[in-house]
Amino acid sequence: MNITVVGLGLIGGSLALSLKESGFAKKIIGVDNKENHTSEALELNLVDECQDLETAIANSDLILIAIPVNAIVEILPKIMSLIDLQIVMDFGSTKEAICETISNHPKREQFVAAHPMAGTENTGPSAALSGLYSGKVNIICEKDKSSERALKTALKLFQELSMNVIYMDPVEHDKHIAYVSHLSHISSFMLGMTVLDIEKDEKNIFNMAGSGFQSTVRLAMSSPEMWAPIFNQNSKNVKSALTEYIRYLQIFKEALEEHNSEKMLELMKEANDIRRVLKK
Amino acid sequence: MNITVVGLGLIGGSLALSLKESGFAKKIIGVDNKENHTSEALELNLVDECQDLETAIANSDLILIAIPVNAIVEILPKIMSLIDLQIVMDFGSTKEAICETISNHPKREQFVAAHPMAGTENTGPSAALSGLYSGKVNIICEKDKSSERALKTALKLFQELSMNVIYMDPVEHDKHIAYVSHLSHISSFMLGMTVLDIEKDEKNIFNMAGSGFQSTVRLAMSSPEMWAPIFNQNSKNVKSALTEYIRYLQIFKEALEEHNSEKMLELMKEANDIRRVLKK
Repeated sequence: MNITVVGLGLIGGSLALSLKESGFAKKIIGVDNKENHTSEALELNLVDECQDLETAIANSDLILIAIPVNAIVEILPKIMSLIDLQIVMDFGSTKEAICETISNHPKREQFVAAHPMAGTENTGPSAALSGLYSGKVNIICEKDKSSERALKTALKLFQELSMNVIYMDPVEHDKHIAYVSHLSHISSFMLGMTVLDIEKDEKNIFNMAGSGFQSTVRLAMSSPEMWAPIFNQNSKNVKSALTEYIRYLQIFKEALEEHNSEKMLELMKEANDIRRVLKK
Repeated sequence: MNITVVGLGLIGGSLALSLKESGFAKKIIGVDNKENHTSEALELNLVDECQDLETAIANSDLILIAIPVNAIVEILPKIMSLIDLQIVMDFGSTKEAICETISNHPKREQFVAAHPMAGTENTGPSAALSGLYSGKVNIICEKDKSSERALKTALKLFQELSMNVIYMDPVEHDKHIAYVSHLSHISSFMLGMTVLDIEKDEKNIFNMAGSGFQSTVRLAMSSPEMWAPIFNQNSKNVKSALTEYIRYLQIFKEALEEHNSEKMLELMKEANDIRRVLKK
């Protein structure tokens, strides 16, 4: 089938690469309002051609939206009104506002709301990786609001990407994802800030940084333009997660100030239980 | 030469493996007050034999100490008083208290204070890896207080491990390391706590966790028994780092509450500068 990918960054570019390689896409049409993205995507062979949104939709069977979540909310109703029999999917990191924005659209059932739990800290067409999605989890929201045909197409696509699909309510999705993804990014961004700040006085501090620091601070290299709209759309849940996180850091700080080894040990031993989750 | 390794966990076990493989050590003698560690280290062929501390020292040319930093401070003066011509090195993650504890010892010049910036979140003899140190940075403190012979032996050892050596004052070391290592661990431990806490109500939350979450929370699997003494010995510096970190998280939370995208973007763009450091 012919597939339009709207947004040729890390997520969209990786989709384009993988779906072309697997043969699922006969032709990939790229749409991106940044000219350097379209030219780069063509050079890198991520897409077969680039077109404007309306032309691309008319020439496609399936439209995949991989742009910042504030832009998805704006463009999605427009795309839904332009389609005939095409199926539309989004890949945004929030789901409540996106599902809400077309909940009453007459073509709602031609849409599938998705969130692949995959990414890197890099951005733009050059960050695209063909194996990005393989073995990862994809979350589909409001599956009952999609037609059988739309859902079947989506499931075939995720099968081609070797992804494991789970289903979730969009409100639940946004609440949970605040903890296991959005909070991690804030913790990492602010860790980066803290250490960069001290570097102003201590020039050679980063000669000392090992793999542990790199691991915790890696996400601080992520795209601000992608993340600010996510935090805004999911602010209620992200605020709860961040409040809890700060509360725990303060509890630890108090134990540290009191040289209370027992309390520090207790907190770290509880945190060790994360091994159960990560090693399974 | 014959080498005694005191402490047969991740750090000591990896030293034993690497130094035996490279031929730098003719014989490795293990010392550990946990019986399951000595039996496991023998089974895994990390060491050639295990002896009590006094016998091991008498049979060695070089003594490497790789135990929690509170135990180093206790055992180091005792070891220094037991040696004849042997050279002693420690591998603890703090340096001020350790250097201080033997600053006036008559055999001070037979000691080299080191901190290899290498590790994983795993613990015990089974966590030992022969390539753990390769390509990593090692910090030597107070090199002028070590004799030429002791320093030469230490440099040869780090060369065998393929490590890059930098020199630093112990007070500076402890201040900087609070930011680029100790803080990362607290941020990760408490991130683990926050998410495990919410999991009590939301059973399937971890099905959603992707590689970003794993990266930021990996260090929460680290050994509490190793880290509590580090935080205690370096509490002044760790407190400063943690205070700054919490301050930045609160600034971000405020921006989030005010839906202040400009401020969030500004903070994240500044944090992006960490790329300069990590990609070099």
